[in-house]
Amino acid sequence: MNIFEQRQRWLQGEMVKRGWSGFLVTQNVDMYYYCGSMQTGYLFIPAEGEVLYLVRRSLVRAEEEASADVEALGSWKTLGERLRARCADADAAGAALRIATELDVLPVQLYVRLQTALPGAVWEDGSLLVREQRMIKSPDEVTAIRAAARVVDAALEAVIPHIREGMAEFELMALIEHQLRLRGHQGLMRMRAYNSELITGMVAAGASAAVPTYFDGPAGGTGLHPSSPQSSGRAPIRRGEPILVDLGCSIDGYLIDQTRTLVIGDLDPELQRAYDVAEQVLRATEARLQPGTIAEHLYLLALDQVNEAGLSAHFMGYGADQVKFLGHGIGLEIDELPVLAKGFKYPLTPGMVIAIEPKFTFPGRGVVGIEDTYLITESGFEKLTLTREGIIQTSK
Amino acid sequence: MNIFEQRQRWLQGEMVKRGWSGFLVTQNVDMYYYCGSMQTGYLFIPAEGEVLYLVRRSLVRAEEEASADVEALGSWKTLGERLRARCADADAAGAALRIATELDVLPVQLYVRLQTALPGAVWEDGSLLVREQRMIKSPDEVTAIRAAARVVDAALEAVIPHIREGMAEFELMALIEHQLRLRGHQGLMRMRAYNSELITGMVAAGASAAVPTYFDGPAGGTGLHPSSPQSSGRAPIRRGEPILVDLGCSIDGYLIDQTRTLVIGDLDPELQRAYDVAEQVLRATEARLQPGTIAEHLYLLALDQVNEAGLSAHFMGYGADQVKFLGHGIGLEIDELPVLAKGFKYPLTPGMVIAIEPKFTFPGRGVVGIEDTYLITESGFEKLTLTREGIIQTSK
Repeated sequence: MNIFEQRQRWLQGEMVKRGWSGFLVTQNVDMYYYCGSMQTGYLFIPAEGEVLYLVRRSLVRAEEEASADVEALGSWKTLGERLRARCADADAAGAALRIATELDVLPVQLYVRLQTALPGAVWEDGSLLVREQRMIKSPDEVTAIRAAARVVDAALEAVIPHIREGMAEFELMALIEHQLRLRGHQGLMRMRAYNSELITGMVAAGASAAVPTYFDGPAGGTGLHPSSPQSSGRAPIRRGEPILVDLGCSIDGYLIDQTRTLVIGDLDPELQRAYDVAEQVLRATEARLQPGTIAEHLYLLALDQVNEAGLSAHFMGYGADQVKFLGHGIGLEIDELPVLAKGFKYPLTPGMVIAIEPKFTFPGRGVVGIEDTYLITESGFEKLTLTREGIIQTSK
Repeated sequence: MNIFEQRQRWLQGEMVKRGWSGFLVTQNVDMYYYCGSMQTGYLFIPAEGEVLYLVRRSLVRAEEEASADVEALGSWKTLGERLRARCADADAAGAALRIATELDVLPVQLYVRLQTALPGAVWEDGSLLVREQRMIKSPDEVTAIRAAARVVDAALEAVIPHIREGMAEFELMALIEHQLRLRGHQGLMRMRAYNSELITGMVAAGASAAVPTYFDGPAGGTGLHPSSPQSSGRAPIRRGEPILVDLGCSIDGYLIDQTRTLVIGDLDPELQRAYDVAEQVLRATEARLQPGTIAEHLYLLALDQVNEAGLSAHFMGYGADQVKFLGHGIGLEIDELPVLAKGFKYPLTPGMVIAIEPKFTFPGRGVVGIEDTYLITESGFEKLTLTREGIIQTSK
């Protein structure tokens, strides 16, 4: 049984417990997770029996890629019957099917069409279950994240010698992206949340890095225009200001997320001290990074440390624009579970992969901090990020 | 009255005709279109009166950018009252508000939350109205698309001398993206349709360009992995095979879309002939590209021409993987109205911007074709694409 079939079986077990008839997977990333293919169509995982992949395009490609019975989607009118035929509990005349799907991402128009195609079915929100399953990575997923960690490290090191005073932020970002793509970055940084977008990462320097954004993360950036109001803008990078390089890349679908703080010349001592506190927070977090620790406790612990250091107002953004987390799960999407934030009671579990990103924002001056991605193991953690820590100084 | 306010007023006029109380804009791109800002929140356009922008983050930035009354989103519990207070028809005790929103993109979970926040409201699907309004571009939108046309042209010309036999597709793509980003490309190619993604464009050569994808477009590509199954892969580019360079970029939020066919050395005469037919289809389309022509007629006309040329099986993909359109509107998103396809009865209207892309797919051999983006004018059309036409030959 390959990894995709194992995932299907796990989900089937959960559906049986819940009395669901089946799961209609509609989102491309979830579809890939459960069958190894993301062609256009619907993946139907019945509570028992074989999985059906109804494909509009490309059928040939789905047949090559997917761990499922692949059929042409064909007429929408027959969709209901074809799904019903896969449900073991559809035999009882008139019994309403209970069909789960991902209501966190499914658009209303498509939902209404699906409801019409399966009249009488009761719909369940299966999105949390999918996200919880995806929270625990299998060894092959970790292998891909390791590969992404190597790519982002090599790309950053390749770019560092080319950083020069007066270079615009977007020029630095263009160099980084080029190095990432040459090393196999797929060019997508997928996020699950509505309206969320990420343009490779947050690369910005000095005052403009501290400009807040809509983006649900601690660093900001002016961006190039109000129509893409995040990350690198046109500001020149100046000597002595912190250059925040928060980067990811995607290899075989899987993402890494890391941040380093760079500077041309020397960093202001106050910002250097804040950076040092960020590393201390990371070390203190690592000390509790083991199975059984509750996700939110790591955030609360960090708040205490930051408070003691007198940096609460600057932690994870400034003032009203602070975000209220310390880290997040990562995998096929950037915004995975668990979140290290209040209300997230998940005990850390082997196989979780979490990006932890203590950062401090100083309006008018910049953002400093660090972010590493970790695998939770039986005995504690393994840091997947490879890049050297500490402020990275260049002299050009 | 600035352009954003003009758009709000137009929408208000349409809402009055329909008896709607207001439009709750939830999608980032639509929000930018109506107020000039895409911070996180909700933009409420009542049928009459001032527009309210409830912002979670960043409030400061929304205040700087938005043509609307900006307020902190605050507690979700007060959302209903605050929207109701803006509705002129909310005075009549118990009268149900009719609130439109974009049901084509809004996820079900969020929709349910909004329904709960506004108990008793009747919800209308306003997505088609928004898409129809956005179909007609204002002069400033055309200015941005012109800028994008210059960037994509300059980037392509900068890359052509570096194309070499044996270079992998993804290496060519990395070069192109670098040149685009250095010239101001925002790094996003937004699409509206669920699950749609575009990694800058479709750049692929020979047999691998003809590999079909899930993507709703005529060209395919292997991509780097089944988790991003489109566009450039690892195949080396070989002498004599067509290199399809279907590219876009985003300037000030607005996209251009163009395709050129390149070759190292000489192209096979049969593929050259198919390319020539693609240019003939484009010329014949241009001859009808004027106000009043019905969108679908251009597609039907192209089908006739292609049939006469004996190339029907190869047009816009091959066999079961053919797509059934000739072109598409473009603006803030790639997949805008009108679509040049059966069932689209829109008469061409000044201000429409349409990418027209006749292409022919030859399995095992490659894809050839051309794509230009056009503005419909009072007297006919203006071609916005600047890049030279014809097969672009290189000799390296």
